Amino acid sequence: MPRELMFEVITADQASEKILSHWQLPARLERVGLRDTWNRILSEDVVAPEDVPGFSRSTMDGYAVNAEDTFGASESLPAYLTLRGEVPMGVKPEQVIDMDETMAVATGSMLPQGANAVVMIERTAKIDDRTIAVFRPVAPGENILEKGEDVGANQVVLRRGTLVRGQEMGVLASLGITEVEVFCLPNVGIISTGNELVEPEKTPSPGQIRDSNSYTLYGAVKDAGGQPHLYRLVPDQEEEFRATILKAVEENQVVLVSGGSSVGTRDLTLKILNQLGELLFHGIAVKPGKPTLATVVKDSSGTNTLVIGLPGHPVSAFITFRRLVEPLLKGHLRELLPPACVYGRLTKNIPSQAGREEHVRVRLISQGEQVLVEPVFGKSGMLTSLTAAHGVVTVSLEAQGLAAGSEVAVKLFKEL
Amino acid sequence: MPRELMFEVITADQASEKILSHWQLPARLERVGLRDTWNRILSEDVVAPEDVPGFSRSTMDGYAVNAEDTFGASESLPAYLTLRGEVPMGVKPEQVIDMDETMAVATGSMLPQGANAVVMIERTAKIDDRTIAVFRPVAPGENILEKGEDVGANQVVLRRGTLVRGQEMGVLASLGITEVEVFCLPNVGIISTGNELVEPEKTPSPGQIRDSNSYTLYGAVKDAGGQPHLYRLVPDQEEEFRATILKAVEENQVVLVSGGSSVGTRDLTLKILNQLGELLFHGIAVKPGKPTLATVVKDSSGTNTLVIGLPGHPVSAFITFRRLVEPLLKGHLRELLPPACVYGRLTKNIPSQAGREEHVRVRLISQGEQVLVEPVFGKSGMLTSLTAAHGVVTVSLEAQGLAAGSEVAVKLFKEL
Repeated sequence: MPRELMFEVITADQASEKILSHWQLPARLERVGLRDTWNRILSEDVVAPEDVPGFSRSTMDGYAVNAEDTFGASESLPAYLTLRGEVPMGVKPEQVIDMDETMAVATGSMLPQGANAVVMIERTAKIDDRTIAVFRPVAPGENILEKGEDVGANQVVLRRGTLVRGQEMGVLASLGITEVEVFCLPNVGIISTGNELVEPEKTPSPGQIRDSNSYTLYGAVKDAGGQPHLYRLVPDQEEEFRATILKAVEENQVVLVSGGSSVGTRDLTLKILNQLGELLFHGIAVKPGKPTLATVVKDSSGTNTLVIGLPGHPVSAFITFRRLVEPLLKGHLRELLPPACVYGRLTKNIPSQAGREEHVRVRLISQGEQVLVEPVFGKSGMLTSLTAAHGVVTVSLEAQGLAAGSEVAVKLFKEL
Repeated sequence: MPRELMFEVITADQASEKILSHWQLPARLERVGLRDTWNRILSEDVVAPEDVPGFSRSTMDGYAVNAEDTFGASESLPAYLTLRGEVPMGVKPEQVIDMDETMAVATGSMLPQGANAVVMIERTAKIDDRTIAVFRPVAPGENILEKGEDVGANQVVLRRGTLVRGQEMGVLASLGITEVEVFCLPNVGIISTGNELVEPEKTPSPGQIRDSNSYTLYGAVKDAGGQPHLYRLVPDQEEEFRATILKAVEENQVVLVSGGSSVGTRDLTLKILNQLGELLFHGIAVKPGKPTLATVVKDSSGTNTLVIGLPGHPVSAFITFRRLVEPLLKGHLRELLPPACVYGRLTKNIPSQAGREEHVRVRLISQGEQVLVEPVFGKSGMLTSLTAAHGVVTVSLEAQGLAAGSEVAVKLFKEL
């Protein structure tokens, strides 16, 4: 029987569903200071303890007025208001504005009591030290940011699952929230195995190569918002391999086993993972990436850890990681946006076999306003076909390829 | 004269060009270990010291052969080869393959001398311990990765200016390069100023607000690949303000002055920056973001530092940072890709005035296969209009708005 029929192949979508129905990224939490919230995911709703702004503020340089006093004002028939001084920045004005009175305000000044709008300085003229002419009417609320208009007290201002960008840090700062609870970065163990592998700092003997998958995955895990942990290289020796997997299962939420691509290594990985946990699937209809397997293994406390056996070829390991593992690591995000893509015109035909999802490496070429999408063909063993590529074009399970000249979406490996 | 005509407004593109023609991000370099190369930009070409792989390897499980021996082989008329044993993984085979001989190989095995191709195990049958039947011919080079096929010795394998992703780490590892030279993260000083501002941990008095711009910019600088440095809040007091700017100029390559939005603060910023350095521009035709100014200030060693006065409104400061400063911080990258965008259908009309470039905050709504793009309208003082948004749609200088229903590109604030 041909080897390829020996494992039951499922689609990438089915593989994702199998993982999600048997395992969920555990929600480990930690508190971090404001500056360390960057790029983290909130694990609690943030409720505003107070209004922002805490008082009505001018959004323009000009004059605080009672809007009614300006109704009907025009160039030919200005409204004349009595100037009652200036509101100093950062200070509460003691003065109360009465009918036909005004105070000078700067952008950000607190509005004096009695005022409900601001006239831009450009729409006024100072007649004398005590008199301002207003040439245009303003509506109540015009040119001011009202108390609580940005954030209302007791409002949920940031939801659990929000990715903290600069603007979320700004909101936290504006509310005086200097510490917040976030999800811990998921720990991802990376184990490379195979008798032919040596560490990067070693010189390989003939027949040996350096382990590159560990480092490719290290970077890919970081990009996906995880914390990678590299384990020492394991030869194809059952006891040592099992011990390393068990150690990694204790120390991580996800374990990636990769490296050796020989049938011996694959069989050993399958055998040990089958003994240690529950096999979810073995084989996916993705090119490259077919010989991927997933198991769920319990650690000593009974907690499930996901252990994924990635294909040995570097390109296959990387593409499979992106397709199956990366979405898991982002699982605490409240919303997953449609992936950011660059669109462009395909320069060559991409042939593909229906019945498997194909991820084709491509590079982008800017040509004036146009973006050309150039397939980077190359064996799955060639890491440089990944460094030459900016991302992938996906040919769906049903499609039989893509025609040169067609407009395609490129999912980037990393946004610049 | 209306205040808005008091400064000479230039377009955002002109502003970018002015900056670039007067200032370049200095190339400070450092050496980092392999694991720390992630997300850094290479400052030197990386030349391969050796071939990868260092020997011809099998990419399949099967039998190493001399391709000529399989020519004409078929199901009905197989080629029979003499099995000379198995190549152990990670070891150089001592055996030499002669005419009509073969050795068993696994994926990744070194090819024995005399072999130039591999027959997949599925295309063979083992007749007895010494005889293999081959049912299909292979071409020379088939199912092998030849010595130096991924990387050739002395080849420039990664160029100066490359952003290191996982796959670049993998290439470095495969070459045994465990240390490499990268550009230092650009130091970006952030100064907030304004009498109305207090630090986030303080409780503002009436008329005061907490400084949020510093933290919004902190995150934005991190996203752009810079190293932010926050300075203490400065009141609108000339001596202290000047001293803080001079300190920041010594310690950074770029300094952002932001915070206070009052005319007093703006005038003070302009006055001091005009005294300290060369004013490049004051006022850009961007909404929001008009009152932006840029100067180049020499530090004590005569090195130029770029000092940008950002608008005080949080939304304006953020958008201006993204438009003018972010591209500078990425300036060491060899290539800037077209920005990754999500495309979708606009739900509402966006009005805009020709003659200025408008950046409209939008949020994405997934609706089945469709992506809807919903404008988030809101005053520039409302930080929550930024937290509610996923990115911006840009209305160009010439356009007079965008119509509901049209397909637009959303430049994301951050890719998920």
